[in-house]
Amino acid sequence: MKTSLASDAPTVTGKVRLTSEGSIAVVTLSQPGRLNAITVAMWEEITRTFTALSADPTLRCVVVRGADGNFAAGADITEFPIVRKSEADVYHFHQKVVAPALRAVGDCRHPTVALIEGVCVGGGLEIACQCDLRIAARSARVGAPIGLLGFPMAPDELRGLLAVAGRAVTLELLLEGRVLPAEEAVAKGLLTRVIADEAVEREAFQCAARIAAGSPEAARLNKQTVRRLTPEAVPYSEAELRAFYAAWTDTANHREGVRAFLEKRRPGFTG
Amino acid sequence: MKTSLASDAPTVTGKVRLTSEGSIAVVTLSQPGRLNAITVAMWEEITRTFTALSADPTLRCVVVRGADGNFAAGADITEFPIVRKSEADVYHFHQKVVAPALRAVGDCRHPTVALIEGVCVGGGLEIACQCDLRIAARSARVGAPIGLLGFPMAPDELRGLLAVAGRAVTLELLLEGRVLPAEEAVAKGLLTRVIADEAVEREAFQCAARIAAGSPEAARLNKQTVRRLTPEAVPYSEAELRAFYAAWTDTANHREGVRAFLEKRRPGFTG
Amino acid sequence: MKTSLASDAPTVTGKVRLTSEGSIAVVTLSQPGRLNAITVAMWEEITRTFTALSADPTLRCVVVRGADGNFAAGADITEFPIVRKSEADVYHFHQKVVAPALRAVGDCRHPTVALIEGVCVGGGLEIACQCDLRIAARSARVGAPIGLLGFPMAPDELRGLLAVAGRAVTLELLLEGRVLPAEEAVAKGLLTRVIADEAVEREAFQCAARIAAGSPEAARLNKQTVRRLTPEAVPYSEAELRAFYAAWTDTANHREGVRAFLEKRRPGFTG
Repeated sequence: MKTSLASDAPTVTGKVRLTSEGSIAVVTLSQPGRLNAITVAMWEEITRTFTALSADPTLRCVVVRGADGNFAAGADITEFPIVRKSEADVYHFHQKVVAPALRAVGDCRHPTVALIEGVCVGGGLEIACQCDLRIAARSARVGAPIGLLGFPMAPDELRGLLAVAGRAVTLELLLEGRVLPAEEAVAKGLLTRVIADEAVEREAFQCAARIAAGSPEAARLNKQTVRRLTPEAVPYSEAELRAFYAAWTDTANHREGVRAFLEKRRPGFTG
Repeated sequence: MKTSLASDAPTVTGKVRLTSEGSIAVVTLSQPGRLNAITVAMWEEITRTFTALSADPTLRCVVVRGADGNFAAGADITEFPIVRKSEADVYHFHQKVVAPALRAVGDCRHPTVALIEGVCVGGGLEIACQCDLRIAARSARVGAPIGLLGFPMAPDELRGLLAVAGRAVTLELLLEGRVLPAEEAVAKGLLTRVIADEAVEREAFQCAARIAAGSPEAARLNKQTVRRLTPEAVPYSEAELRAFYAAWTDTANHREGVRAFLEKRRPGFTG
Repeated sequence: MKTSLASDAPTVTGKVRLTSEGSIAVVTLSQPGRLNAITVAMWEEITRTFTALSADPTLRCVVVRGADGNFAAGADITEFPIVRKSEADVYHFHQKVVAPALRAVGDCRHPTVALIEGVCVGGGLEIACQCDLRIAARSARVGAPIGLLGFPMAPDELRGLLAVAGRAVTLELLLEGRVLPAEEAVAKGLLTRVIADEAVEREAFQCAARIAAGSPEAARLNKQTVRRLTPEAVPYSEAELRAFYAAWTDTANHREGVRAFLEKRRPGFTG
């Protein structure tokens, strides 16, 4: 029952909405009042949605966005006491819930554009980094301050950030934990472009339209060739993954980090 | 006879000129009236020229440029109905004509500087990306809008763009098909520097002079070490290459893209 | 006796100082009057210092800086006539003195921040590139003009520059030999951020404090994961390394480059 949620938990209000405008599909992350924090149910819905989109040969582009002026605040940490209780839970959450969702976005056969407004941090940034382009509003903020939650970024999540941001920027984001204004993030290559807030939605859809105006076969093959030509690290073995999770899951700092977040206070780490 | 051209075709006016200034060689792409679009004969001449330059131990630097204020508009598409008729032709064109030319530039034993004015798109950008430095005029425009031609970038062409621009910028260029002004391109790492139009030629040759003032052995070994330390994807197998070309050569969108270009209209793609 | 120095050589005044402020260690390169040029004794001290720091589980961050307003001017070339006389000496210097020091910095288990003021060139830049973040003063200058010394950058030194700067910027720095102002270097991704001279020290320590406020386990695991996910080139074989050094050690241009530096004149290279 590790991924079940109490039926009255506020988190279950989250949704992944799918709409379309001609040959352009729009995936919207929505959890009102929580900056679209992504619940387990939403991660699973992301996996299903993108798997279905990839199977639809009539599409030309997919736009990913958040509802109500934010992209996404990351995984919904209010669920963590329920869904990330034990080491096995934590492993399951990252490897079997989050990683498949990110993979489904990254493997999408169609070009993908992240339309980034407001907050785009943690899991939100991980999703944005799986998209092919990132069009952001000037007031957007991006980062991955998960060191303050007392745990490291899981390998299958870090992989996408690293592919977009490179080693130096990835280390900066993860070690320092700053949330960057859009202008700083675009200068660091983390965003494709930054647009005035009032024009960003239009620009993202114009970008999608430019993509949709090209040959769909060419777009799909270009995505495949870019991936094919990008050297990849040796895949993690199961033993390596287990060792990674064993190294931090059951530590005082991990417990402190999540507890401090839920209690809305600064964590105090030791060691 | 796949690479032969009718002797009265306008494309045969294209030339690759080789001159030198002291220990600096200058390779100039020239096809007047066609923005130096690169014919099959010119690609083959590029291969021969750079192979010869690499064999000359007295050189210190090679500058690559286009004639009359443009770098190059890419492959000469007016030849495509002749030289890219069948799947075998297309394979031959990309693998046996273009790829060896790009390889000869990239493998040049001497440091190479692209002096980029005006249009630098498609095959022109592919050549520039094989050079070690890219000095561009402020009014230069760079891009790879080949999705509008209905076909994807071939692996051996994409490899060089990816090495310079990284994954995110490569996907942006190929999927969206925008031609970028020089200032945007330099911010994305696609160019080494941008210089006022009237000063760009002087700066490129001063850059070549700075390179030529260093130890030639050091320069050559530095080029070799950078390459040696850059992880490479597993080489494509012949079967993979054949599958790549089979996937798009004989499609309606490929035919439509090239035809629309030749008819100077926007293509209409399906699927 | 290849690394011994005459006891009255001015170079032996160089030092690597270790201090600490709470859980933040500070490593200071110091050679007064020589822009903190790094002697053999200092390289060896760097190795020892960082090995010891990695073994200290109570630390949260290490700041690396130079004394008296400069980071470091690179290896102390006044020692070269003593410590880099023969091919075996040169091999020893780069592989057994410099490479282990850079490795010790790069392998530091704690996050590392380079505080860069003034001159940061050659070996100084190599050290900075082994750090996780690079906070630089606006008046700082970074580069690797070693082509003017008549020799190429050794593979284990170039590796770190390449990891931070990417292929195009690495080639620009090594081939052209320009020393870049901080603003240009940050735009190229070589620096994490640039700060007004009078505020850079405070910013570097605030950055270290932000890092130290996160979970130390998370920081260490994030460093490990970033490294684990970064594809690496096949390691050099011993034969390859020997061939690399054999290619330039005993050449007229190498002798001329070092001699010209010591005689404070421009070198004249041949070939």
